[in-house]
Amino acid sequence: PLLYGITAGLSTLVIVFMLVWTFHFRGGFAWQDFPAIQFNWHPVLMVVSLIVLYGHGILVYRLLRNEPKKKLKLLHAIMMITALLLASVGLKAVFDSHNLAEPPIDNLYTLHSWIGLAAVICFALQWLFGFVAFLFPGVRHSLRASYMPLHVFGGLMIFGLATAAALMGLLEKAIFSRVSYAPLTAEGILINSTGIAIASLSLLIVYIATR
Amino acid sequence: PLLYGITAGLSTLVIVFMLVWTFHFRGGFAWQDFPAIQFNWHPVLMVVSLIVLYGHGILVYRLLRNEPKKKLKLLHAIMMITALLLASVGLKAVFDSHNLAEPPIDNLYTLHSWIGLAAVICFALQWLFGFVAFLFPGVRHSLRASYMPLHVFGGLMIFGLATAAALMGLLEKAIFSRVSYAPLTAEGILINSTGIAIASLSLLIVYIATR
Ligand code: HEM
Ligand code: HEM
Ligand code: HEM
Ligand code: HEM
Ligand SMILES: O=C1O[C@H]([C@@H](O)CO)C(O)=C1O
Repeated sequence: PLLYGITAGLSTLVIVFMLVWTFHFRGGFAWQDFPAIQFNWHPVLMVVSLIVLYGHGILVYRLLRNEPKKKLKLLHAIMMITALLLASVGLKAVFDSHNLAEPPIDNLYTLHSWIGLAAVICFALQWLFGFVAFLFPGVRHSLRASYMPLHVFGGLMIFGLATAAALMGLLEKAIFSRVSYAPLTAEGILINSTGIAIASLSLLIVYIATR
Repeated sequence: PLLYGITAGLSTLVIVFMLVWTFHFRGGFAWQDFPAIQFNWHPVLMVVSLIVLYGHGILVYRLLRNEPKKKLKLLHAIMMITALLLASVGLKAVFDSHNLAEPPIDNLYTLHSWIGLAAVICFALQWLFGFVAFLFPGVRHSLRASYMPLHVFGGLMIFGLATAAALMGLLEKAIFSRVSYAPLTAEGILINSTGIAIASLSLLIVYIATR
C-alpha cells in the first residue's frame, strides 16, 4: 500500500529525470538523420522498458490481487512483450548511432554492452519459456509447477542484470559526453541521482515481489 | 555439490583475472609513494572482500551444514568483519590515489563511487545489526526471529549493490585507462570477461542462498 505509492513515485521520478536530462542537456530526440541525437532514444527506451515496465509487470500479480488469474497472466505477458519490443527499438537506436556515425563507432566493446545484451537475450528467452509453460494450452500441470520457482528466480535475476546495465550505461555516458565528469556539475548530479533512483526502485520491486 | 564446485572455480577465475590485469596491464602494486599504482589495491581488495569473501560468508550456513550453529554464526560474523576491514583498506587506496595525485583528483563524483559508498555503508550497518541481533547475549528470541527475514533480504540486496559497483568500477577503469576502449584489445577483453565472471558468480551465490 505505502510501498506501492513509493514505487509509483520513484518510477515517475526516474522518467522525469531521464527526460529532463535528454531534453535539457543532450539535445532531445531524432532518428537516423542525426545519429548522435538518435542515441538519446537508447537510455530513455531501455529504462522505460527494462526498468519501469518490467518492474510493474513483475508486480501485477500483487497490485491486482482480486482480478481473475487468467486475466493477470495475460496482462503480465503483454507487459513483458511490450517491454521487449521497446527495448529492441532502444537497441536499434544505439546500434544506428554507432553505425551511422562519421566515422562509425565500434559495437559491443564495453562491459555495459556485454551485460546489457546478455540481459536482453535472457529476457527474450524468459518470455518464451513463460509463454510456453503458462499460456500455451495443454502443458502438463506438474511441468508448470516445477518450472515456476525458476521462472520467478530468473525473472528477478534478469531484472538485476538490467538494473546493473542501466547504471553502467548512465556512468559511461556521463564519462563520454563531457570534457570531464569532475568536478560535479548539475548534469553530473542529475545523472548520479537518476542512478540512485533506479537502484532504489529496483530494490523496492524485488522486496515487494519476495514478500 | 556441483554448484559449490562452480562457485569455487568462478571465484578462483575472478581473482586470477584481477591479478593478471593488475600485474600485466596496470603496473602491479605500490602504496603512497606512487598514488597511481596504489590505486590498483582498490579493485583487487574490493573484489576479494565484497564479492568473494562476502559471497562465501553468505554460503557458510549451507556449505558447512553439519557444524554446530554457534560455530557457523561466529565464522559468518568473522568473515563479514574481515571483508569490511579489507574493503576499508581498498577505499583508503582509492582516496589516497586521488588526494595524493599531482594535481589532486576530485572525490565522489561518479555514480560508481555513490553506489559503491552506499554499499559499504549498508554493509557496515548490516554487520552491526546482525551482531546485535544474533551474537549479543540476551536479545529476545522473538526480536531475533522477526529481524531474520530482513537480515537475509538485506544481505542479498547489499551483495547486489556491491556487484553493480564492481561492474561499474571495471567499466570506468577500462574507459579511463587507455586512449580508447575501442576497438577491443586483450586488456578490454580481459576486463569485460572479469565482469561477466563476477556477475555469474554473484547470480550463482544468490541462487544457492535462496534454494
Ligand atoms: C537495461 C538497460 C540497457 C541495456 C540492456 C543496454 C544495452 C546496450 C547495448 C547492447 C549496447 C551496445 C550497442 C552497440 O554496441 O552498438 C549499448 C550501448 C550503449 N549504451 Fe546501453 N543499455 C541500457 C541502458 C543504458 C542507459 C540507461 C544508458 C545511459 C545513457 C546507456 C548508454 C549506452 C552507451 C553510451 C552506449 C554506447 C557505448 C557502448 O557500446 O557501451 N545504456 N547499450
Ligand atoms: C520476460 C518475460 C517475463 C518475466 C521477466 C517474468 C517474470 C516473473 C516474475 C519475477 C514473477 C514473480 C512475480 C511475483 O512473485 O509476484 C513471475 C510470475 C509469473 N509469471 Fe512471469 N515473467 C515473464 C513472462 C511470463 C509469461 C509470458 C507468462 C505467461 C503467462 C508468465 C507467467 C507467470 C505466472 C503464471 C507467474 C506466477 C504468478 C503467481 O501466481 O504468483 N510470465 N513472472
Ligand atoms: C564493490 C566494489 C567497489 C566499491 C564498493 C567501490 C567504491 C568506490 C568508491 C567509494 C570510490 C570513490 C573514491 C574517491 O572518490 O576518492 C571509488 C572510486 C573508484 N573505483 Fe571503486 N569500488 C569498487 C570496485 C571497483 C572496481 C572493481 C574497480 C575496477 C577497476 C573500481 C574502480 C574505481 C575507480 C577507477 C575509481 C576512481 C573514480 C571514481 O571516483 O569513481 N572500483 N570506488
Ligand atoms: C555485513 C554483514 C552481514 C551480512 C552481509 C550477512 C548476510 C547474511 C545472509 C545473506 C544470510 C542468509 C544466508 C542463507 O540463507 O544461507 C545470513 C544469515 C544469517 N546471518 Fe548474517 N550477515 C552479516 C552479519 C551477521 C552477523 C554479524 C551475524 C551474527 C552472528 C549474523 C548472523 C546470521 C544468522 C544467524 C543467519 C541465519 C543462518 C540460518 O540459519 O540460515 N550475520 N546473513
Ligand atoms: O555516446 C557515445 O559516446 C561513445 C563514444 O562516441 C565516445 O567517444 C559511444 O560509443 C557512444 O555511443
